Parts: sequence; C-alpha cells; structure tokens
Amino acid sequence: MPHITVNPALPGIVGLFDYRPETARPLSELAEILLRGPSTLTRGERELIAAVVSRGNDCVFCASAHEAFAAAQIEGGMSTVEQATRDYEKAPISGKLKALLKIALLTRDDGRKVDAVSVAAAKAAGASETEIHDTVLIAAAFCMFNRYVDGLATQMPASPASFAERAKRVVEHGYVEVE
Amino acid sequence: MPHITVNPALPGIVGLFDYRPETARPLSELAEILLRGPSTLTRGERELIAAVVSRGNDCVFCASAHEAFAAAQIEGGMSTVEQATRDYEKAPISGKLKALLKIALLTRDDGRKVDAVSVAAAKAAGASETEIHDTVLIAAAFCMFNRYVDGLATQMPASPASFAERAKRVVEHGYVEVE
Repeated sequence: MPHITVNPALPGIVGLFDYRPETARPLSELAEILLRGPSTLTRGERELIAAVVSRGNDCVFCASAHEAFAAAQIEGGMSTVEQATRDYEKAPISGKLKALLKIALLTRDDGRKVDAVSVAAAKAAGASETEIHDTVLIAAAFCMFNRYVDGLATQMPASPASFAERAKRVVEHGYVEVE
Repeated sequence: MPHITVNPALPGIVGLFDYRPETARPLSELAEILLRGPSTLTRGERELIAAVVSRGNDCVFCASAHEAFAAAQIEGGMSTVEQATRDYEKAPISGKLKALLKIALLTRDDGRKVDAVSVAAAKAAGASETEIHDTVLIAAAFCMFNRYVDGLATQMPASPASFAERAKRVVEHGYVEVE
C-alpha cells in the first residue's frame, strides 16, 4: 500500500504526478528532454540507459516501464533489452552504447566512481562529451525517479501488459502530454 | 578535472547548467518548487533535508552549498546545520523534522527501505502526507543532483566563502533566476 493517499487507479509514478502536479511538470519535462529531445543518441538507446539503471536499482515499476519503452524503439526489441539488463557486454548493441552503459552503472552506484578511464573508453568508442553528459544525467535522474517511486511504496499496475500499451502512447506523444 | 569541457570559472552544478541549458531549466524549476515553493515546511527545513542527504552521499559541492543555504534560513544557523549533518537526532530541531530526516536518509540509501513504521512515526510527529511526499522527493532529487555533480567530476569553487555569498543570492532570488 502506498505511504500516502494516491488514486489507486494510477500505479507507480503516474499516481505521484497526479498527487503533486507542481513537481510533476518539471519532472516530466526533464524526462522528455533527456529521453526524447534532440540528441545524437537514439530514443531507444536513451530508454535502454534508463531501463538498465532502473533494473540495477531494483525498481520494478520504472524498470518494467522503460524496458517496454526501450523495446519499442530499439533494434531487436525486448530481446535486446533483456540481454542488456542481464549483461550489457553481451548484448547486440554498439561498443559506444556499452561504454555509456558502463558510465551509467558507475553513476548509479556513486557519482564519484565515474573515472577518467571509463570516460576515455567511451570517447575512444565514439561518444561525444554531450553524450557522456546526458548519460550521467539520465542515470542520475533515474536514481531519483526510482527512489521517488519506491520511497512512497507506489503500486504496480494490475496488468503487466499495461507497460506495452503505455509504451505506444509514450512513443507517439512523449512524457509531457502523457503524464 | 571535469570529465567534459565546462567553463572553468563555473564550479559544480553551475558549470553543468551553463553547459546544457536545456536540462538546466527543468532541474532549476524542480529545485525552486521543492526547496522554495509554497509548503508547510520552512525553506530552512527543506534546505536542511537537501544538505543532510548530500552530506550522506559525500557530495562536497552540494553539501557545502545546501548547508550554507540551510544555515541562512534556519534557527541556530550553521551550528544547527552542523549538528544535523553529524547526528540529526541530537540537533535542536523539531521532532517532526527529525522523523522526516529519517525518511530522507532511508530514501537516500534505497527507496525500498522507507517502511510503514518510519512513515507512521513522521505522521505521529505531525507530518502531513504532502510533507512526507516532498521529503522523499527532495531526498531522491539530491541523489540525482549529487550523482550529476560528482559523476562529471565537477570542481569546487576557489574560495569556500563563495557558498555563503551564493546563499545570499539564493535566499533573495531563488534557483531559477540564479542558475
């Protein structure tokens, strides 16, 4: 049961956004810019970073959601996503994305663990400084979203299929309009 | 040295906001609403939550900044802040704020650690559900800001006194105008 009185029909972060629209607005805008705004990383690649970090934090709601959003926008779909969350080194993704996922997982653990060696490896694999910046901020932002969703003990949707349905709406309309 | 090329005259998150204004806007708005917007928690109490979480994450830039911002807006100033970051149970603050700091530190560690007992204790000490919501989100947001600042290896300001100077501007003008 959630720690605060949210609409029981609205699972996870959706109920929190409904509970406090004032904070929902900048949070949705941040997600929109980071995950869907202009970038040299594809939307699928950015959703995969969000999914891998959320799975690392064991946030089942966020991980399930962003795995579905990544699967809808990345080559290989859910098979690629499942391989990446299990062991990204063996996933059928680019060397650049693997190097960025390493930085994302270091950020997840503790920002101070992101070292010059990991950053140099990402640059050598073709990552730009803005891609490195955005990777760190996506990982950091999901350390926030995961704690927000779990810290208030929000609930999962009644049907697991709802994540795939939600993915269709996010892919078409984005985060600001949907949430 | 920072992992990306930021203006060396702009330390910590200030340089990152300058580097990527698109993400700076929702991040500043989030800080403004959470730490300075309408709330039954004082601005000093909310800055203290941010400071205690940042100190818990060992993010020296964010902790130094928000300790200064809290000291400028809380009874007892820096003495209260230092006692709270060292051992909040012994600090000269209300029982309600102590119960909220406990929730904030559980959120910092892992959102799933926020349990019904801690939430019930905060409610018994007079905390509203919105105050509990905002406490979890402030703690979660600083888990993001701390990782953002440290994950990109940003630098400290040349002079430690700059945090107290910055506090004056934040107290007067807020986060959106300043950063």
